[in-house]
Amino acid sequence: MQSNEPDHAARSDLPADPRRDALQTPCLLLDAAKVRANVDRMRAHLTGLGVAFRPHLKTAKSLDVARIAMTAPEGPAMVSTLREAEYFAEGGVRDMIYGVGIAPAKLARVSALRARGIDLAVILDSPEQAEAVAAQARTTGDALPVLIEVDADGHRSGVAPGDAAALVALGRGLTEGGAALRGVLLHAGDSYALSDPEALAAAAEAERRAAVTAADTLRGAGLPCPVVSVGSTPTARFARDLTGVTEMRAGVFMFGDLYQAGTGAVAVEDIALSVLATVIGHQRAKGWIIVDAGWMALSRDRGTAKQAVDQGYGLVCDLSGRPYPDLIVADANQEHGIVALRRGAKAALPDLPVGSRIRILPNHACATGAQHDRYHVLDEGGRVSAIWPRINGW
Amino acid sequence: MQSNEPDHAARSDLPADPRRDALQTPCLLLDAAKVRANVDRMRAHLTGLGVAFRPHLKTAKSLDVARIAMTAPEGPAMVSTLREAEYFAEGGVRDMIYGVGIAPAKLARVSALRARGIDLAVILDSPEQAEAVAAQARTTGDALPVLIEVDADGHRSGVAPGDAAALVALGRGLTEGGAALRGVLLHAGDSYALSDPEALAAAAEAERRAAVTAADTLRGAGLPCPVVSVGSTPTARFARDLTGVTEMRAGVFMFGDLYQAGTGAVAVEDIALSVLATVIGHQRAKGWIIVDAGWMALSRDRGTAKQAVDQGYGLVCDLSGRPYPDLIVADANQEHGIVALRRGAKAALPDLPVGSRIRILPNHACATGAQHDRYHVLDEGGRVSAIWPRINGW
Repeated sequence: MQSNEPDHAARSDLPADPRRDALQTPCLLLDAAKVRANVDRMRAHLTGLGVAFRPHLKTAKSLDVARIAMTAPEGPAMVSTLREAEYFAEGGVRDMIYGVGIAPAKLARVSALRARGIDLAVILDSPEQAEAVAAQARTTGDALPVLIEVDADGHRSGVAPGDAAALVALGRGLTEGGAALRGVLLHAGDSYALSDPEALAAAAEAERRAAVTAADTLRGAGLPCPVVSVGSTPTARFARDLTGVTEMRAGVFMFGDLYQAGTGAVAVEDIALSVLATVIGHQRAKGWIIVDAGWMALSRDRGTAKQAVDQGYGLVCDLSGRPYPDLIVADANQEHGIVALRRGAKAALPDLPVGSRIRILPNHACATGAQHDRYHVLDEGGRVSAIWPRINGW
Repeated sequence: MQSNEPDHAARSDLPADPRRDALQTPCLLLDAAKVRANVDRMRAHLTGLGVAFRPHLKTAKSLDVARIAMTAPEGPAMVSTLREAEYFAEGGVRDMIYGVGIAPAKLARVSALRARGIDLAVILDSPEQAEAVAAQARTTGDALPVLIEVDADGHRSGVAPGDAAALVALGRGLTEGGAALRGVLLHAGDSYALSDPEALAAAAEAERRAAVTAADTLRGAGLPCPVVSVGSTPTARFARDLTGVTEMRAGVFMFGDLYQAGTGAVAVEDIALSVLATVIGHQRAKGWIIVDAGWMALSRDRGTAKQAVDQGYGLVCDLSGRPYPDLIVADANQEHGIVALRRGAKAALPDLPVGSRIRILPNHACATGAQHDRYHVLDEGGRVSAIWPRINGW
């Protein structure tokens, strides 16, 4: 269903009128210069720390964005679905890790990609999964590469880093069973709840230490562990020392969003993604401006509700991308957004007659992006210079 | 991009193995027999109340589901985006209302559909919109039909039902400007927050009364008002008398969801939509079962958090669709769901080894459906009897 030649698809799809205010709303706008700057900054930081960078493509799900983020057209890259792995493989990416614990029923798709020469690795944290992967390796004669998922912070999945018995049993089961043990992989997911730079640096150090502990355990048992992979946008941003780590993964930083801004990992002015919307009405007595971007265009993500500054369903900006003081999408129905001043705001409601256009910065770039099938890429003059398709699904 | 022949597309797309547990996860399952029963029940109720039924197609966004819900292949039907209007027009639907206040820049697409013989009506609540619609009517020579949106309950948009001056000014502006005034339209959106049957019946009566007041005002000023359209799933379900109303709209009731079950508008056993997921791990010390359906498959909708029973990101059922006692998706990341017992539950965690399949009932059918591009339709034996495509976007 996806084109193998997104650049051609994009060109033929360009609107006749390239002004951003001529687009049908709601739609996604992407500031490619900001994406490039966000990637450059992350790359320089990680180069300084001496680790490789494996961008996570789950936020963008776009080959055009992947080509900006990756260090080479072949990768490395990280994906969150096999659909992404198949799509990016079509686009020439060859070094990928599928970052969700492998389900045995998905191994046939993994093997089909590997048979095409794609170096796709899987992750797991249980003996049942290790047995299934080893059986698949023996059946196909392909030593499937595996990273053992290690739990950095109690966030979700993974073997406890201090559970040497479990780690070594998994490693032996894999290598003796016919699979290839490629290393360990961790994700400090709890770091998303932090905002203090010192606490974030400590989370990055805890992630590093857990990774190195697990890797040392495997190596001490005579098992291979060439890859020590860690990552999350906050820990990537705030890590100060990555001794013992071989690669860092991060994805949402490419676009940035209000949630990441709330953690301090990105600045609001660096957020590259926004939703273009049109004013369709007013309830003046209530101070409401009604726009045609509801939760279908913005997503139901309310992540900033837990942060110091609640951004509602998004922060409202003018067409140039400058935030109106204290103006947020205070509530959302399926196709309606209710724009209003933040509670207690001193600013006045801007004059936005019916037909006016606004841009809305998202709470969560991964969730907002997933509501759309393309990015309208803006050049510095505010013209639509390209349309970059994106995928969804599994 | 969409097939005009979804039945053919569906047949060619059927999986080689029709057992539901052979599907790749996560994916959407749809119990078509439940959809038919939900529609039959609503139709009988509305026939008894003497009003026409205009199903809202924004939940399903599928021509196959629309054909079950509509009283005739041509409609009437309600849509939430012009993309839906275009897709359903391709599929033969001819009588539609676009239920989001019209933005002037969208009128060209409305006129293009009308030029193809589609009776597409728009809604509005401001003089600016009325002027734009009237100008479009004069330019195209097509008397664009308009319903004035009236505010039933302070939920969102609409003219206050008692604001006779505003109603008559809009009506005159439209008819004298060259458009056609077709009537009034209301949506009692605040009814979604209710759960007491008496309060819901009162909300339905308030919606009816506001509609009739506005219609009487227009007629009293010598203006036409043939259509008096009201609707929401809760008020459709709990209305006892609809005197003066000509049509009722509702959509989410076709599938049902946990939020609607929390309001009492549907029963949990009537929910037709679920997400099929696979167990990919455990954190046994925490009582967590990790599955491969995260918020990307379930949506970020947490509507039941505000209700008496918080269902997390969804209620977990076995493969036959029977809920496990007190088992919910307690938390979700992008591609991971954390299944756990509800706080304070007395039930034991079921034994679900890696590779087990579960079904998850959604908080909000509109939001969960939107994360997918197809329905896997189950027959009564649990086999996949069809794949029904669905659309997204604007």
